[in-house]
Amino acid sequence: MSAIPEAFLATTARLSDEVTRPFPASRKCYVTGSRPDLRVPMREVAQTPTLTSAGREENPPIYVYDTSGPYSDPEARIDLMAGLPEVRGAWIEERGDTELLDGPTSGFGRRRQRDPGLAHLRFEHLRTPRRAKPGHNVTQMHYARRGEITPEMEYVAIRENLRLDELHADPRYAKLLRQHPGQAFGAHLPERITPEFVRDEIAAGRAIIPANINHPELEPMIIGRNFRVKINTNIGNSETTSSIEDEVEKMVWSARWGGDTLMDLSTGQHIHETREWLLRNAPMPIGTVPIYQALEKVEGKPEELTWELFRDTLIEQAEQGVDYFTIHAGVLLRYIPLTADRLTGIVSRGGSILAKWCLAHHQENFLYTHFAEICEIMQAYDVAFSLGDGLRPGSLADANDRAQFAELETLGELTQFAWEQDVQVMIEGPGHVPLQMIEENVTKELKDCFEAPFYTLGPLITDIAPAYDHITSGIGAANIGWYGTAMLCYVTPKEHLGLPNKQDVRDGIITYKIAAHGADLAKGLPGAQIQDNALSKARFEFRWEDQFNLSLDPDRARDFHDQTLPHQSHKVAHFCSMCGPHFCSMKITQDVRDYAKAHQLDDVEQAIEVGMQEKAEEFLTQGASIYREV
Amino acid sequence: MSAIPEAFLATTARLSDEVTRPFPASRKCYVTGSRPDLRVPMREVAQTPTLTSAGREENPPIYVYDTSGPYSDPEARIDLMAGLPEVRGAWIEERGDTELLDGPTSGFGRRRQRDPGLAHLRFEHLRTPRRAKPGHNVTQMHYARRGEITPEMEYVAIRENLRLDELHADPRYAKLLRQHPGQAFGAHLPERITPEFVRDEIAAGRAIIPANINHPELEPMIIGRNFRVKINTNIGNSETTSSIEDEVEKMVWSARWGGDTLMDLSTGQHIHETREWLLRNAPMPIGTVPIYQALEKVEGKPEELTWELFRDTLIEQAEQGVDYFTIHAGVLLRYIPLTADRLTGIVSRGGSILAKWCLAHHQENFLYTHFAEICEIMQAYDVAFSLGDGLRPGSLADANDRAQFAELETLGELTQFAWEQDVQVMIEGPGHVPLQMIEENVTKELKDCFEAPFYTLGPLITDIAPAYDHITSGIGAANIGWYGTAMLCYVTPKEHLGLPNKQDVRDGIITYKIAAHGADLAKGLPGAQIQDNALSKARFEFRWEDQFNLSLDPDRARDFHDQTLPHQSHKVAHFCSMCGPHFCSMKITQDVRDYAKAHQLDDVEQAIEVGMQEKAEEFLTQGASIYREV
Repeated sequence: MSAIPEAFLATTARLSDEVTRPFPASRKCYVTGSRPDLRVPMREVAQTPTLTSAGREENPPIYVYDTSGPYSDPEARIDLMAGLPEVRGAWIEERGDTELLDGPTSGFGRRRQRDPGLAHLRFEHLRTPRRAKPGHNVTQMHYARRGEITPEMEYVAIRENLRLDELHADPRYAKLLRQHPGQAFGAHLPERITPEFVRDEIAAGRAIIPANINHPELEPMIIGRNFRVKINTNIGNSETTSSIEDEVEKMVWSARWGGDTLMDLSTGQHIHETREWLLRNAPMPIGTVPIYQALEKVEGKPEELTWELFRDTLIEQAEQGVDYFTIHAGVLLRYIPLTADRLTGIVSRGGSILAKWCLAHHQENFLYTHFAEICEIMQAYDVAFSLGDGLRPGSLADANDRAQFAELETLGELTQFAWEQDVQVMIEGPGHVPLQMIEENVTKELKDCFEAPFYTLGPLITDIAPAYDHITSGIGAANIGWYGTAMLCYVTPKEHLGLPNKQDVRDGIITYKIAAHGADLAKGLPGAQIQDNALSKARFEFRWEDQFNLSLDPDRARDFHDQTLPHQSHKVAHFCSMCGPHFCSMKITQDVRDYAKAHQLDDVEQAIEVGMQEKAEEFLTQGASIYREV
Repeated sequence: MSAIPEAFLATTARLSDEVTRPFPASRKCYVTGSRPDLRVPMREVAQTPTLTSAGREENPPIYVYDTSGPYSDPEARIDLMAGLPEVRGAWIEERGDTELLDGPTSGFGRRRQRDPGLAHLRFEHLRTPRRAKPGHNVTQMHYARRGEITPEMEYVAIRENLRLDELHADPRYAKLLRQHPGQAFGAHLPERITPEFVRDEIAAGRAIIPANINHPELEPMIIGRNFRVKINTNIGNSETTSSIEDEVEKMVWSARWGGDTLMDLSTGQHIHETREWLLRNAPMPIGTVPIYQALEKVEGKPEELTWELFRDTLIEQAEQGVDYFTIHAGVLLRYIPLTADRLTGIVSRGGSILAKWCLAHHQENFLYTHFAEICEIMQAYDVAFSLGDGLRPGSLADANDRAQFAELETLGELTQFAWEQDVQVMIEGPGHVPLQMIEENVTKELKDCFEAPFYTLGPLITDIAPAYDHITSGIGAANIGWYGTAMLCYVTPKEHLGLPNKQDVRDGIITYKIAAHGADLAKGLPGAQIQDNALSKARFEFRWEDQFNLSLDPDRARDFHDQTLPHQSHKVAHFCSMCGPHFCSMKITQDVRDYAKAHQLDDVEQAIEVGMQEKAEEFLTQGASIYREV
């Protein structure tokens, strides 16, 4: 086909270099479930042995939750033009409750497919969309409530466990598995995630698996506070900048660094085509805010939005494979005036669009009045709700105010309604909240929304640090995750200032991986501390390479080290640049411990009590050489 | 003098460009206290007016706590060769309880002064040291307990208040002063800091003013949990890298970005001379870990350390003007074996040096056994203790363990002893602590150490993110500050990996300013939210320049904005790059509010209830033009 965009050829080339390069000392591995096509990816990080005076001590490999998809698998042939292979195709087909359509059923989808002017932009291998057969409900919640464990549920159970059972049975991991008790704020984290536990959590609405039947490339993941805390990244073009190939590149980049889900917030040109390219190449769930595209269709005039246009947009996107929709159905007409005295009014884009629509028409929010019809669409493709917080605070001053909490109560009402239709729901949250008010926010969400998973943006704990809002919000994110938020929407250093570039995306993701992991540790997620323990042991033993390889960003850790001590020999040296060769506290401690061992001072406290003057003198005669042997 | 180091001439030139450049829209101002030489610096940030359809609305200036010293004052003539002008000279002199010595009284200080080989490195204008007259105690705590309010106490009271009384009397600040109630965990933050309150807190030991009588250049500041949370930065050369001029440059840089105190942790060449250059040019308190230099004097062999050598080092540094000493007097012989089963042993450099000394000699830690004599030195110069946590955890696995808490209990015992001598004390803390265990750490410190100010390093909440440990620790720092830590020791992105460069120092400081400010907000410090409110109001009103100028790092905020929208015209445009010109939620909200105002819908809720169909229609006819006027 002559219309293959050349930009993508360039992107493909770049991906193979920068993005598909495996992490150092890492091996992509798969754990196979109850059927051969259920292969759950993990990253295995190899370690070097510890060299002691007593000989070599093996350090076992560490398993890391892997969001990078096939891009990090050297066996996979990546072809952005063809899209990723299907993971879930057979599972969906086998259930027998869906049917292939002749083509898109949305008016907009059909027009875009027919438009010859878009040929040069269009993803080539368009898949025929699938929909639930009439009278069927194909949501994971529906299956869960019927008592069925789907392959998706089994997949996420294996994925969450990271081989923990096997590690517990392996004596090499005994010390690494030691962990402090958590403080879980009412979360219930089982020692081992079973498929039945997953099913139960989904049936209860406490967790969701966003997995549209038209997104078979998806590697399933779960969002719920009794599982690992997840992070979402945002990309998307805008009217002023960015292009399709940049967005695809950012999506793969996001997967590499640990983004669990991704929202395409495009508001610029070719939203439909951009989304197709993203979905066909995305191993993670993709979310959107359909009102953004709907607004583009009415040339940016909120008052011209209609239910019919919005409905067509939902179907258009559902048939492409979008896994969750942000729907601002809680922005009720009567809540809008509650924002009038705010310092920063309504800052959610979706919220302000709907506020404008409501005031212009003096009618109730059409997302609220048509919520039942939206649920029918969600059922037919298994799109999950992300009930949007259109009245979230845009500043500390407006945190936890009446407007926000009034909307939250309505989101609870809508949650109950959606659950009656077996539609999966998560609840969006703020935003900007000072530290001391974060717990109240989570507690209220859990109560008013019946423990539906909370999905928050940050929150930022102060407004005074633009250019560092990944950090102001990362602090809030770690705390809100600890209190019970299931997924954290990342913030980049460019928040409030501009569009993030690739390095901003990386900084934002790593910051949020830190926050999510900090929350997992604080809640006491079983096995959460193993990577910390392994890295700290490597650090203490001067295994520099292992320290880099076990870190969230091995490349930057190595770069930073090499800026001060660039030579390879320094990476095996028993000192670091902070202290210099004769002055390293870790080395001194190691010497102290070696000394204690060499003199069989296993119970040194007792040895000291009975007097060890003789041994002290012996140490003096040899101590200097031990200490300065480097 | 022919020996003026050329490197310093270059440094001076660089400072005038990069470091002494005033912050944008900022004016250095001084509030004069009860005597004309008591002039307390602040930074006044001017704002532009808000342009509304009703006309111009003035936005008042915002006052920012200013750590930058004379370097940011265009009136000040900066000459690193001459040092800063004295702030406290007359205050110290007037008290009449000190005497000028003939010269250094330490053996080492005398030898360095006489060594002709050091002339090319030596600060030219060496001041004759000062010491308490025999039988006198010159600590701020001693004065406080005698009921005296020193100029230093008045200075910090004015400094902490940031003109808050005046702002409360000025109607322009009424809305900006609104603030959420804090959760203070037992802290008692008064509405207004009085000199008497400062005196009382110092007398009780709940706060310290580190202010050596030989550091008259110092601009006094206070460390205590009933005041603003402070941050410390670390610099210092090492055997492998860095130079004197780099350290001076970093000190000024640290002051610029907000470092409240600074520790010189040099372990390389010319420690004595480096410190002199730093002190003579430092507006902030300088702390050291004297055991580092003592170890250099015995060529890095801990077992050769003696009390006499250490004592001489304390006097050497006290006579230069060091304001606080980290003293690891709590590393007792019987505690050392408690670290044997740790994952990461003893990671504090000071702690491991003393552990080695104790084991080598089979004697109790000489800092503990000579603690009374150390207190005498502290009294004679007013050096504050920073009682070091030599057994702090080096990994999550070792957090809050018996070794750490045993040492902490001994630090409490030492605190009581020091207080009996009217010597000021703060207590150092970890380190690496998962989120859920941070509160326990603070609570124990406050109890065991009788509310002496806590001064913690981070803590890091996870070990898996080297290269991002300013963030892993910034999360811990915000939390530990909220719970009651008085000062946070910063961590840079290079922690565990290498020596920080200037950008790392800046990243570390801003991260810790965020943490400290987040803690102030969470505790409910009066006036803490004013800068947040002003910046958010500016953001909401598209006053881009004010948004940059009010931020912690105006330069980077502006740079990031300009990366996407570089043109000057965009800084006054009513849109930002995140959304594009026709799609800005803040603009929509503003339109909604303008509309409500224009139609006198002050009580929009009521208006809606009585029916506003007519107005809705009116809005429709004009809405599009309002919305798309940009």
